[in-house]
Amino acid sequence: MLLAWRGDAYVGWQRQPGGTSVQAVVEDACRRLHGGVQTHALAAGRTDAGVHAWSQVVRIESAVCRSVDATLRGLNALLPADIACLAVGPCPSGFHPVRDAVEKHYRYRILVRQGRCPFREGAVWRLPAALDTDAMAEAGLSLLGKHDFRAFRAAGCSSPDPVKELRSVQVVRRGDELHIDVVGDGFLRHQVRIIVGTLVEVGLGRSPVAAVGAALAAQDREAAGPTAPPGGLWLVAPRFSPPLEWTAGQAPVGAPGD
Amino acid sequence: MLLAWRGDAYVGWQRQPGGTSVQAVVEDACRRLHGGVQTHALAAGRTDAGVHAWSQVVRIESAVCRSVDATLRGLNALLPADIACLAVGPCPSGFHPVRDAVEKHYRYRILVRQGRCPFREGAVWRLPAALDTDAMAEAGLSLLGKHDFRAFRAAGCSSPDPVKELRSVQVVRRGDELHIDVVGDGFLRHQVRIIVGTLVEVGLGRSPVAAVGAALAAQDREAAGPTAPPGGLWLVAPRFSPPLEWTAGQAPVGAPGD
Repeated sequence: MLLAWRGDAYVGWQRQPGGTSVQAVVEDACRRLHGGVQTHALAAGRTDAGVHAWSQVVRIESAVCRSVDATLRGLNALLPADIACLAVGPCPSGFHPVRDAVEKHYRYRILVRQGRCPFREGAVWRLPAALDTDAMAEAGLSLLGKHDFRAFRAAGCSSPDPVKELRSVQVVRRGDELHIDVVGDGFLRHQVRIIVGTLVEVGLGRSPVAAVGAALAAQDREAAGPTAPPGGLWLVAPRFSPPLEWTAGQAPVGAPGD
Repeated sequence: MLLAWRGDAYVGWQRQPGGTSVQAVVEDACRRLHGGVQTHALAAGRTDAGVHAWSQVVRIESAVCRSVDATLRGLNALLPADIACLAVGPCPSGFHPVRDAVEKHYRYRILVRQGRCPFREGAVWRLPAALDTDAMAEAGLSLLGKHDFRAFRAAGCSSPDPVKELRSVQVVRRGDELHIDVVGDGFLRHQVRIIVGTLVEVGLGRSPVAAVGAALAAQDREAAGPTAPPGGLWLVAPRFSPPLEWTAGQAPVGAPGD
């Protein structure tokens, strides 16, 4: 199924002590929908506390079978207002959302303005200073390709392989927002947020454009910039080949902040 | 000053028993900014519980004088996340925000889709059925002009004069939203929400186009449609002639859901 959620109230996708996870809420709704039978939910990846999902692919496994329409309607009746089931489809044979995802698209939303916006609280990172977007876009290019991204991962990252392929980095101004869109075959823990924090240092004129490629080459977390806050980060979508098909509901159009 | 707020958590602009008003929160922030000196805040009009303000003009009166920059920064530091001060300027001599407002622009946002959207909860009215927007637009035209709008006001409306001039009604589709924009010299209690509820009856095919003009002519609340829920309603802006000038901060661009 395809889920969308506001991340503010959750410790992230994955179950963990010390707070409510999206996974726990979804599994609980599925369990109730399935008459008390436990259901396991597997997402195409983890998201951190406060990070939002525009659309995330989640596989559910249960001994109970319901129609896709009943599942879509039933889940939305049981899920809280900040989590929605957008679409549902039967699982392709042998489908594994983590292993089969060929790439992921994230968007980071920066609100460039002096004053707060009460309608985008927690959905953007507000920066009151002007940013040099040309410099940020140029610096972003130095990260494209297959690299060891250990300079851009959090200390607690459990990924066995720090080599990832970054396929696209775009810095686009839309109204009073600046969007940093990244597409890659996979991301390390906090990788997108550290990339954003590093590009913002360049945009603010605190680091030269060359510092970004240098940080990548140094393979040292200290050489990269700070981690941008989670609220501006949106998982737009994981991508599968062939694309997944939905028999009830539909995938969202566009991306957040369009 | 120009304020913006999310209405979800408030009983509306005006102080009243049984909940927190935007006015009380704003006056409290002003009082703290002014070292404990009581400040009175007068808005260009009331808004109901759950209704949002994209930009509302509020006059504050206080025995304490601070610079516009200090007022803008100070208020935003004291106001909660769902209320922002967008701009501040010195009050024109004799300015009265209610009496001097020449017209008001409201937008009502309808989300036309089957499924919930976790990112627009409380900001739109979701309708799962398709709406005949041509019929709604045509029906809206019958309300244009200066009329006795008593069929379109709530029972508790305190306005002494039910005659108002509706200058513009537009029904515009934007992506998955339908926006009903109305501009008039003033509005009765719930007038916009009853207009929207009545037009939606036409859009759903439950009433003919002619029913809207007939309700107006009947001057009977029973002849109009139901009151649309408050969460979809946005006060875009009150308008003044000459336009107000802001010496710190700025008015927002566009309108909600653009």
